Amino acid sequence: MTWQETAAQYRASRDGQIPKDLLVKSLPSESVLDVSTFPTQPGILSPLDLEITQTLTVVELVEAIAKGTYSAVQVTEAFCHRAIVAHQLTNCLTEVFFDKAIQTAKSLDEYYAKTGKTIGPLQSTTCAPDGKKAGHNAVLADILLKQGAVLYCRTNMSQGLWFGEGHNNLFGRTTNPFNRNVTCGGSSGGEGALVGLRGSLLGVGSDLGGSVRIPAAYQGLYGLRGSYSRVPYCKASNSSEGQEIVRSVLGPLTASVDGLKLFYKSVLDAKPWDMDPWTPRIPWSEERFNLSDHGDGGKLCFAIMWDDGVVKPVPPYLRAMEETKEALIAAGHEVIDWIPFKSAECVEILTAIYNSDGGYDIEKQIGLSGEPRLGHTLDRSAKELSTHELFDLTFRRTNFIKTALDHWTATASRTSTGRPVDGIIVPVAGCAPHPHDAPMYLGYTGFCNLMDYSASVFPVAKVDPEVDIKEDRKEFMSSDDERTWKEYDPELQRGAPCSLQVVGMRYEEEAVIRMTEIVDAAIKTKRAKA
Amino acid sequence: MTWQETAAQYRASRDGQIPKDLLVKSLPSESVLDVSTFPTQPGILSPLDLEITQTLTVVELVEAIAKGTYSAVQVTEAFCHRAIVAHQLTNCLTEVFFDKAIQTAKSLDEYYAKTGKTIGPLQSTTCAPDGKKAGHNAVLADILLKQGAVLYCRTNMSQGLWFGEGHNNLFGRTTNPFNRNVTCGGSSGGEGALVGLRGSLLGVGSDLGGSVRIPAAYQGLYGLRGSYSRVPYCKASNSSEGQEIVRSVLGPLTASVDGLKLFYKSVLDAKPWDMDPWTPRIPWSEERFNLSDHGDGGKLCFAIMWDDGVVKPVPPYLRAMEETKEALIAAGHEVIDWIPFKSAECVEILTAIYNSDGGYDIEKQIGLSGEPRLGHTLDRSAKELSTHELFDLTFRRTNFIKTALDHWTATASRTSTGRPVDGIIVPVAGCAPHPHDAPMYLGYTGFCNLMDYSASVFPVAKVDPEVDIKEDRKEFMSSDDERTWKEYDPELQRGAPCSLQVVGMRYEEEAVIRMTEIVDAAIKTKRAKA
Repeated sequence: MTWQETAAQYRASRDGQIPKDLLVKSLPSESVLDVSTFPTQPGILSPLDLEITQTLTVVELVEAIAKGTYSAVQVTEAFCHRAIVAHQLTNCLTEVFFDKAIQTAKSLDEYYAKTGKTIGPLQSTTCAPDGKKAGHNAVLADILLKQGAVLYCRTNMSQGLWFGEGHNNLFGRTTNPFNRNVTCGGSSGGEGALVGLRGSLLGVGSDLGGSVRIPAAYQGLYGLRGSYSRVPYCKASNSSEGQEIVRSVLGPLTASVDGLKLFYKSVLDAKPWDMDPWTPRIPWSEERFNLSDHGDGGKLCFAIMWDDGVVKPVPPYLRAMEETKEALIAAGHEVIDWIPFKSAECVEILTAIYNSDGGYDIEKQIGLSGEPRLGHTLDRSAKELSTHELFDLTFRRTNFIKTALDHWTATASRTSTGRPVDGIIVPVAGCAPHPHDAPMYLGYTGFCNLMDYSASVFPVAKVDPEVDIKEDRKEFMSSDDERTWKEYDPELQRGAPCSLQVVGMRYEEEAVIRMTEIVDAAIKTKRAKA
Repeated sequence: MTWQETAAQYRASRDGQIPKDLLVKSLPSESVLDVSTFPTQPGILSPLDLEITQTLTVVELVEAIAKGTYSAVQVTEAFCHRAIVAHQLTNCLTEVFFDKAIQTAKSLDEYYAKTGKTIGPLQSTTCAPDGKKAGHNAVLADILLKQGAVLYCRTNMSQGLWFGEGHNNLFGRTTNPFNRNVTCGGSSGGEGALVGLRGSLLGVGSDLGGSVRIPAAYQGLYGLRGSYSRVPYCKASNSSEGQEIVRSVLGPLTASVDGLKLFYKSVLDAKPWDMDPWTPRIPWSEERFNLSDHGDGGKLCFAIMWDDGVVKPVPPYLRAMEETKEALIAAGHEVIDWIPFKSAECVEILTAIYNSDGGYDIEKQIGLSGEPRLGHTLDRSAKELSTHELFDLTFRRTNFIKTALDHWTATASRTSTGRPVDGIIVPVAGCAPHPHDAPMYLGYTGFCNLMDYSASVFPVAKVDPEVDIKEDRKEFMSSDDERTWKEYDPELQRGAPCSLQVVGMRYEEEAVIRMTEIVDAAIKTKRAKA
């Protein structure tokens, strides 16, 4: 069978799973770029479906279910319906199993009818894990189910998980619902588009270089890349299995900031270290969430990474950082400048690790189907390393992240709190959500992967051609800088979300989640006053 | 310069550092095998030196210093004196810096005189880190100094850290003070001999396959191999740097069980995660020490690994396990049999990882001096792997330790507590402390390195030719089994300590320390009653 035949088979199988009566007949034409509000138009969803999916945060939804306002079946049906609309708009789904989901929901409703309680903290949050088919459940999927989640679909990814778009030969391309001219980001791009259209309020992606944060950011969502295995990775599908030098992590993409804590606390309360040997024995800590390591949150000091010394972020990010800075100062916090730390070397080491097998794994995976390589999937131009060369590279990385840690702790001399900066505010990328098939500089997310820092994303701005004017530049810090500047086209990228990260140290997930809430609230307060 | 000349230079340098007036003139003859009580003979140490070094536990010593019973200088001098005696008996030291140690002690005494307080929880514990010279302090050394420790010497190791003895070409061989016919164990063998003779009450070694636990066990000491980087490894010298698949860890060797908690709590209270990027943010937990994850310690269930399915331990270990079992049951705990889990495959994977660079690193290190290989230092018979082969091996390991974890948690069905077994009681080796240059089966310690389990050692028995009779055997589980049986010679190994481990899950250091105290107390109680 040719790969084209395989692909056709996969698509047909998916299409066959979608109930025909749920399909929207009259879709916006391809020239309509912003389809983000389409599902709210009259006649698309029922009033109940719209009520359930449109306005509640994920925590509000969980509370409404616990109170009996909505049944699990109602909630599941509503999100199944909306997911189909999202798919018709962006091509975000690869697999649907609504019947199974409704069955799960029925048993949740029975439990609730009997006990008056929900089965777990995630009850009926319709959670969509990305990933391909496998013969077993990932440990995380087992935990989500145990905590009451309903799984009902799988979403699209980049080929081999290796680039920042939702695009592969089997299922084609997923587009960005805020501007279908640009990518939804990746690798967990289908997940981003689905949650971006509120076809789910909480999804899960994997992040090896930014693959949770980029799609979350490109759809104006919240997301979190925690440190290694805090969320269990065991038995989840991955590419480059056994590459455990820079490890991929699983993390949430969510439509509201309260989804980050809900997800993390629910997962950690299930004691994942008894199921995944790599998950460290660190329970959810309410104390750390209340910033016990950060002066109890009274006055925080953030550092802003205006640029990383390699690529200057395009104007909407600068605007987002200015606004965030003002909001934080207005809320009583301190803001200083981050001094960039060897970003070029960081990307060099990270890329060398990604390429260390000389593309062996991707070659093997692609070889299975004979399909062509896409986009910026790793190529074989790098030579495969020998073990001792890989050890040298690994040791170089360990020494590098030690100096990076020292660089961070040294900021204690520049803060008024006496502590090192509590968090770093960093653009999610140098570029605004990029046109399909364009290359992307990975440094702004990738440094967190190399250092294993905890890092969230939160939405701030959208490209606005009226204010985010492209400036004239003659001098550039790097070829990536020049390319990023050249490709910035505010008219083409109009309306695409430009988001920031809060970066904390290793295993500071609780503190990063709380700081993200604080920053998010500060921005909303400032806007409410303006 | 030939390696012989280099070695002579190193030894001369060390000998020059030893104050001549501290040398004991009349040593026991070489035919005296058990020299463990020699330092207590009249005329060897001053009454004060003997009082300080002979009977106190390390916690009692710290308390005596805090009360002003002894000054830091008195304590430092006493251990310097005793260390020299230990060295003359076993050849355990490679470097001494007593002047610097006395200076440190003086400043500690000045601080105490001024404030009435000690500077930190380790004040004046004369702590000997093993390892070679380096241009910088290890993060751990900085922490120990900050917590009040006095560093005064370095101790001998195996060549390249790669086998279970204290033997290399530069400094020669360290012997076991309980029976100089057998090895002190290794790689941290000099440390074992020094603490075994109470030339220090607390030392530090590194453990990649058992290198803390074997020398601690072979000298009848307590020791702990914690999980990765719980004790910071950053900037410590190591071989095979960048081999981060199975990572070496630092851990204490101590003359009394209370040294384990003192060491761990002191290190973790210094927040090592701010200094070592690999140290997870897990503070010392008094709650976990009080067995919050193990029914608050009321009734524990231990499993005994009578053998691992590959090598049957020699009689003194069986006697030690029988005694431990009876003691635990008498103390109200439960004891079941451990079902061996794929020990041969475990050793195969571990060895494949050790050998994955085809001996490149050891070849390079040895090539620097041109010295010959010793003992069981890795050879180049294994082929160096390519990166993708190494990734395959790494993934095989990750899958293996997941099944091992499931094997452990499944024991919940066999305990009366409803929990999986709280700890496993395991011999430190199949063989009793072995004659010099004999090979050693690594499985009994190595599985903890592959799984990253927390594991202590504690003393139980010594080889007693009258009771530990060699049994007749005709059938063997493996060639290692047959060799271990053949080489067992209770008369030759007379008096050599045979110790056991308490093994806990990953990052269960606090629980393992407390369980070790419980087992140790149970044995002492049983013996007091007998």
